[in-house]
Amino acid sequence: MPSLEGYKNELDYSYAPGIFPAIECLKNRPERVRRVLVHSGAAGREGVDKLAVMASQLGVRVEEADRVLARISGKDNCYAAAVFEKFSDELDPGKPHVVLHHPGDSGNAGTIIRTSLGFGIEDMAMIRPCVDPFDPRTVRSSMGSLFGMRLRIYDSFDDYREAFPDRMLYPFMLDASIPLAEVLKGEVPPVYSLVFGNEGSGLPAAFSAIGQPVRIESNDRIDSLNLAIAAGIAVYAFRMKQ
Amino acid sequence: MPSLEGYKNELDYSYAPGIFPAIECLKNRPERVRRVLVHSGAAGREGVDKLAVMASQLGVRVEEADRVLARISGKDNCYAAAVFEKFSDELDPGKPHVVLHHPGDSGNAGTIIRTSLGFGIEDMAMIRPCVDPFDPRTVRSSMGSLFGMRLRIYDSFDDYREAFPDRMLYPFMLDASIPLAEVLKGEVPPVYSLVFGNEGSGLPAAFSAIGQPVRIESNDRIDSLNLAIAAGIAVYAFRMKQ
Repeated sequence: MPSLEGYKNELDYSYAPGIFPAIECLKNRPERVRRVLVHSGAAGREGVDKLAVMASQLGVRVEEADRVLARISGKDNCYAAAVFEKFSDELDPGKPHVVLHHPGDSGNAGTIIRTSLGFGIEDMAMIRPCVDPFDPRTVRSSMGSLFGMRLRIYDSFDDYREAFPDRMLYPFMLDASIPLAEVLKGEVPPVYSLVFGNEGSGLPAAFSAIGQPVRIESNDRIDSLNLAIAAGIAVYAFRMKQ
Repeated sequence: MPSLEGYKNELDYSYAPGIFPAIECLKNRPERVRRVLVHSGAAGREGVDKLAVMASQLGVRVEEADRVLARISGKDNCYAAAVFEKFSDELDPGKPHVVLHHPGDSGNAGTIIRTSLGFGIEDMAMIRPCVDPFDPRTVRSSMGSLFGMRLRIYDSFDDYREAFPDRMLYPFMLDASIPLAEVLKGEVPPVYSLVFGNEGSGLPAAFSAIGQPVRIESNDRIDSLNLAIAAGIAVYAFRMKQ
């Protein structure tokens, strides 16, 4: 493997910055880990020893790399990172999915991954153009839960629908007529997709003709909910229903 | 008024950066607005004219201030801002409150303000040490909804309880025994406070003896929910109950 660079989208590898995200990477995607990087000042920090032991058991090389760590973590202190190969999974056709259509913010994407996994949704599709799910900022805001998700990126929503033609779709839209609580009073099938649009523009109007569009019941004191909040509420409410 | 500075906590004024947050400031806190700043390249942008008209109706001076706008907005483009005096409100004793105990992240605080207002909770207490709710980053992540909230900062949680002794408290804790859905199956009084702890450390253990501690039902695939997500789910679920 050549010497490590600052993160760029074109690379076939990325970084899981932070001790906790790095541990999640080794735990959930051991076959993808290329190296573990530690800071020269990391000795004795909580979790660093655990990370080193895990790396050793997996036969993964651990090296000091203060400069790379500073470059990938920006302002935040970063005492360790895992270097991992990017991945693309087969989503489970028998499970609920979260679909992010043109997500534009890595913090939101990472937070939605974390929330979804925490409520037992383990399959996520992203529709291009979208944030880079392997960007270290996304990995960090997911707190490493990215490595516990099955994740696949599609070139278009049509491609996603073709791959999973038989499932109920719930597009979340500001102007949908049916509120979330009312949708959840009815039957919810075991297999469905919760679909969320871009932070600024939402879902295209055409999604109002797809599946069962849903509105979250916020009032007109705000313009809209933050995307990660809307997704969090939706995932929670659907999972509690089951 | 002396010449404007980059934002500092000690100042008695702050900035609402962005056209939409600035409009919210003029609409909800007109008596607090000192000036409106616009960028020399802002002419013709959506909302700038509306902002100028509102300022003129209120007798608020509008001035070009490219350098101050660049300084308060960091990397983001910022075409306008309102300069406002900081405020401290009386919270309504007859309404539900959100209480943030030692919040440490301005983005989370702003997002929680936005979500709470969007579900009709208009009163927020913050307990020191806490983020600065008037920091332009908080204002921006609240999308200006800060100006529609009644907000008060307390030196301690005891001070808050003394001010509002007779209300039901719901502290949100990872190790609380009762899950949210179960709490909401029972009676919820019309007047209550939802209490959330710090991003890293949560609420102190002593809160488990206060009111009715609540746990949000996430699984062990994640360490915890993001604070703004937990608060969003809680506020949504409580408001839907009513």
